Amino acid sequence: MQKHIDGGTSPRLARRAIREGKWSGVTTGISNGYAQGNLAVIPQAYAADFMRFCMFNRAPCPILDVTAPGTPFTENLGEDIDLRTDLPRYRVFKDGNPIDEPSDLLSQWRDDLVAFVIGCSHSFEESLEQEGVPLRHREDGRAVPVYRTNIPLKPAGPFHGNCVVSMRPMPPADVIRAIQITTDMPSVHGAPVHIGHPEMIGIEDISSPDFGDAPVMKDGDIPVFWACGVTPQIVLMNACLPLALTHAPGNMLITDVPNHSLKYR
Amino acid sequence: MQKHIDGGTSPRLARRAIREGKWSGVTTGISNGYAQGNLAVIPQAYAADFMRFCMFNRAPCPILDVTAPGTPFTENLGEDIDLRTDLPRYRVFKDGNPIDEPSDLLSQWRDDLVAFVIGCSHSFEESLEQEGVPLRHREDGRAVPVYRTNIPLKPAGPFHGNCVVSMRPMPPADVIRAIQITTDMPSVHGAPVHIGHPEMIGIEDISSPDFGDAPVMKDGDIPVFWACGVTPQIVLMNACLPLALTHAPGNMLITDVPNHSLKYR
Repeated sequence: MQKHIDGGTSPRLARRAIREGKWSGVTTGISNGYAQGNLAVIPQAYAADFMRFCMFNRAPCPILDVTAPGTPFTENLGEDIDLRTDLPRYRVFKDGNPIDEPSDLLSQWRDDLVAFVIGCSHSFEESLEQEGVPLRHREDGRAVPVYRTNIPLKPAGPFHGNCVVSMRPMPPADVIRAIQITTDMPSVHGAPVHIGHPEMIGIEDISSPDFGDAPVMKDGDIPVFWACGVTPQIVLMNACLPLALTHAPGNMLITDVPNHSLKYR
Repeated sequence: MQKHIDGGTSPRLARRAIREGKWSGVTTGISNGYAQGNLAVIPQAYAADFMRFCMFNRAPCPILDVTAPGTPFTENLGEDIDLRTDLPRYRVFKDGNPIDEPSDLLSQWRDDLVAFVIGCSHSFEESLEQEGVPLRHREDGRAVPVYRTNIPLKPAGPFHGNCVVSMRPMPPADVIRAIQITTDMPSVHGAPVHIGHPEMIGIEDISSPDFGDAPVMKDGDIPVFWACGVTPQIVLMNACLPLALTHAPGNMLITDVPNHSLKYR
């Protein structure tokens, strides 16, 4: 039986419901006010290169925590978090190809695995909404449109690729406010990487995103592009590691970290 | 013969003079407007833990660049930089103890060494001065006072210790302005970690710093404490690594990175 968890559920109770198999849906709209995180788990042999990659490319890959090898816990991000069981659904990649979508990582876990939790745009969307910046996709019940770009990332070891961006259209005055608000939140993607002309960053058709739903744009809206947490997944696939484990899209880690505490971090 | 290099010398010419042995003094006041960096070089076996440590403790250890194992160059920070020769003086630590202060690292360099360049308060001092915030130690030609504290850092692997801070006393209105200015410069230590009462962070006698010169305080001044780049040196010594290489105090890496470009990074 699906247990009911929602925006008012505490992160700890939400994680417990997920761990016990009582919740198997996406984490969007659950435990409002708390940061959610992208998960990337790779063998220790690649961890230093991936850490360098994330540091060189903080906008798409802002690290919230990194575990010591073999440790599936992240006490930095909350009480009693087990990264192997506390996300609703995972993806398993072998040699860069997705081969499975399990509901836990217990059978995949190894002593040489290092887990990265990477900041997520849910956090800054909450700040934007609180400040009255319109989020067209949310008003319309859609997923945010996400695009591949030609913005090159700085490579490190086997990790390379272009930045993937999410797009939110809004009126000019809100663009200015959104830049100010997200500038102060570098650990959840920070300021936009581009505004205005999609073609300048290699997006040919704004109405056809590579992931997510088609955008809703109103007259006078300017498209605003933020680096997106899909980027590390693409980069991991590009690297063709023998093993990589991630969250499944929309199935994030719910942390105990209040969104407002991410300002200036 | 000591070649004359000063605030107006370009970073590249300054590094060349140092590399060629034509300058052997400290780097304070050289190539004004460009970021200088602390250097920490350790064997690859410890690099992932040290990177985690720096990420967990970004205020004292803000990473400007990390090299791939064996690479003594940092193209991210400037043209033709050789970390083995471009700082005036280095320190060599064995098992946590300083054993030498060579003028280059050519004979110490190994294929398994990873170099970290860590942000330095020179950058934010320049911003403070430009905004009219008084810097008492500079007015008086002294070194900034630096103190050990009881502020614990989050450990990672063998790396642990308390935060070391630099202190700048200033009037209350300037404290507010200094907090605003440095908040936007997280890659060079960011906002202060403490203001006011030294005893609250374990400093018993403000007039006796652990490093640097005694402070100059004026009536009404409030002491402002920033996390300091001496911290990673202390942490490296605590870790008792078989080998660690650093800059000698005041003998920093002069980068091509303009200080103003560090805002929001």
